[in-house]
Amino acid sequence: MSRKPLKESYRLGFDDLEALTIGAALLGTGGGGNPYIGFLRAREVFRQGATVPVIPLEVLTEEDWIGEVGGIGAPVVSAEKFEQGDEGTRALTAVEAELGIEVAAMISGEIGGANAMEPVITAAKLGIGVVDGDGMGRAFPEVQMCTFFIYGGSVSPAAIADEKGNVVVYKHVIDMFWLERMARHTTVDMGATAMLALPPMRGDFVRKTAVPATVTQAVQIGRTVLKARKARQNVVERVVEETGGKLFFTGKITDIRRHLIGGFARGEAILSGIGGWAGSEAKIAIQNENLVLWVDGIPVLMVPDLIINLELDTGEPLTTEVLRYGQRIAVIGLPAHDLMKTPKALEVVGPAAFGYPELTFNPLQSQPKVA
Amino acid sequence: MSRKPLKESYRLGFDDLEALTIGAALLGTGGGGNPYIGFLRAREVFRQGATVPVIPLEVLTEEDWIGEVGGIGAPVVSAEKFEQGDEGTRALTAVEAELGIEVAAMISGEIGGANAMEPVITAAKLGIGVVDGDGMGRAFPEVQMCTFFIYGGSVSPAAIADEKGNVVVYKHVIDMFWLERMARHTTVDMGATAMLALPPMRGDFVRKTAVPATVTQAVQIGRTVLKARKARQNVVERVVEETGGKLFFTGKITDIRRHLIGGFARGEAILSGIGGWAGSEAKIAIQNENLVLWVDGIPVLMVPDLIINLELDTGEPLTTEVLRYGQRIAVIGLPAHDLMKTPKALEVVGPAAFGYPELTFNPLQSQPKVA
Repeated sequence: MSRKPLKESYRLGFDDLEALTIGAALLGTGGGGNPYIGFLRAREVFRQGATVPVIPLEVLTEEDWIGEVGGIGAPVVSAEKFEQGDEGTRALTAVEAELGIEVAAMISGEIGGANAMEPVITAAKLGIGVVDGDGMGRAFPEVQMCTFFIYGGSVSPAAIADEKGNVVVYKHVIDMFWLERMARHTTVDMGATAMLALPPMRGDFVRKTAVPATVTQAVQIGRTVLKARKARQNVVERVVEETGGKLFFTGKITDIRRHLIGGFARGEAILSGIGGWAGSEAKIAIQNENLVLWVDGIPVLMVPDLIINLELDTGEPLTTEVLRYGQRIAVIGLPAHDLMKTPKALEVVGPAAFGYPELTFNPLQSQPKVA
Repeated sequence: MSRKPLKESYRLGFDDLEALTIGAALLGTGGGGNPYIGFLRAREVFRQGATVPVIPLEVLTEEDWIGEVGGIGAPVVSAEKFEQGDEGTRALTAVEAELGIEVAAMISGEIGGANAMEPVITAAKLGIGVVDGDGMGRAFPEVQMCTFFIYGGSVSPAAIADEKGNVVVYKHVIDMFWLERMARHTTVDMGATAMLALPPMRGDFVRKTAVPATVTQAVQIGRTVLKARKARQNVVERVVEETGGKLFFTGKITDIRRHLIGGFARGEAILSGIGGWAGSEAKIAIQNENLVLWVDGIPVLMVPDLIINLELDTGEPLTTEVLRYGQRIAVIGLPAHDLMKTPKALEVVGPAAFGYPELTFNPLQSQPKVA
């Protein structure tokens, strides 16, 4: 397939995949699907020497169509029900056919977790680039929780494909909530995971609405983690420094409840403080991702800000499905991008949208980087 | 829109709609959706003088594409949630666009109930004909329970449209059970009713697999009922004579249980015998349609044969959602068409397919018509 090349700032190669995976897992805030399986699949695609151009937002124009693919479903299932491999391209080509266009680059709707890898894999297969940005700057459980939809992107045509060969096209959808509802239930039919192609967007729209430079951010976070591990430094400290985040709690998991409800992993984790937080108790609410952190009953961190659990000793980002009794974790907070904190955005991704109308979003201020 | 005309045997006009509605309701065997609302909609379309050519199966060739639309969902809901009106054409044009074709005529997948009217309405809107035949010769609750699928018709592309403007295309579907599963759940999302366009079929395939002449049969049954009512004859007796059916029970409803489960109306009716059946008890099992009739514990009539409830005094066909305590009804049986009774068909529409593996299908023999 020959497609128009866009001006790139650098290329992702085989050696960047591990860093991207780690950074994406961390930005997944407990959800977004474990990117490790996507990493293994990407490695297979890149092993033959493929590299994927990373396209900065600035070069995108209204001439360029940008494609978006990502997994939809329950992360806990995706760890056991693997993809056949071509779901992303089958879903993407279905929406391309619907519009009679070809996309010039891919973008991730959700840099956090497995959906960081999917556009990279699809881009590598199609021989095109991946845009340096995404629609969340993190992970969120529902497809409409994305800057592209929040700021008026089309909701159709979209398509989902499963590993069995089914391809369903959402040709006309009246709003993003209908797309979420219908695609979510069809995903449950398909076995709780599938690949979703969202409506291709024009480049100028992406330039204005994408959370910028998040592919690069993920790779840099990953590199920080890898470097700190190699140098046997304190990974949690190094991540907090690198990201401009803040350490909110260190504790041991004393209780964890998880249920698969309506295709989502919902639940909560209870932590008993250790180190500087000895004697305190924390609670984290979960819907695929970490939603709210309470310390001693006070909500101190909440969506859309990022609540990230790292294993205390190794700095390993922990997705909600691997949390278990006795684990010692550090909870760090990162501020969401400003595009996620406008009144319009908070209607869709603020605490009330997740069932916490009693919480008023209290934004975490970015911490100055330690030089 | 200009489309190729096919050779017609006669035309349906405004004055035929009532007879078609009554006949379709009777062939609906308790389900298929009450065609009365479709009748009102069809009347609006025909009121301006439109007529719809009825195309006999014999004239269809492989050059002709035949379109199929029908309602999908819970009949009980369709009596309250009305259509916007263009769902059928929106779903049909979505599958036409997918294949890059235009259909030359419409066919009903299900002559029993509301789906007898939908292809007529769509045909009238498009200025094309309706094929004299259908895919069931009655009504059945699930989309795969149709001769077109049983005998190898394509399962995609299909499309569903709702009254809100949503159109979902099933571009590739691996088998008819997947189409049923996914379209059913999306229909539930849409509010439990929607319009479904099945894959357009080639004329030679339709000629071989359709249950023949069922549009004409429905109109004739309807005319018999109307004539008998006008002449104050016993409608039940006249219908049994006209159809070659058999009276199996007359009784009073003493218990009726109905639940809306997974988008279906399920339940059972208990009847206490009257007239020739005084002292006997009958039970009718329901999944949208009447599935099995037991008299004094013995299964005497079962799918795919037709189990039809008529109000004893008026001969009015009763859909399962209007059955109520105290109603006096006649239960008549009609033999299913041979295409519905092959081993291949019985796998899909026999008693076991409806959850009665203990019942062996015992076909009702056609009764000679009283001359």
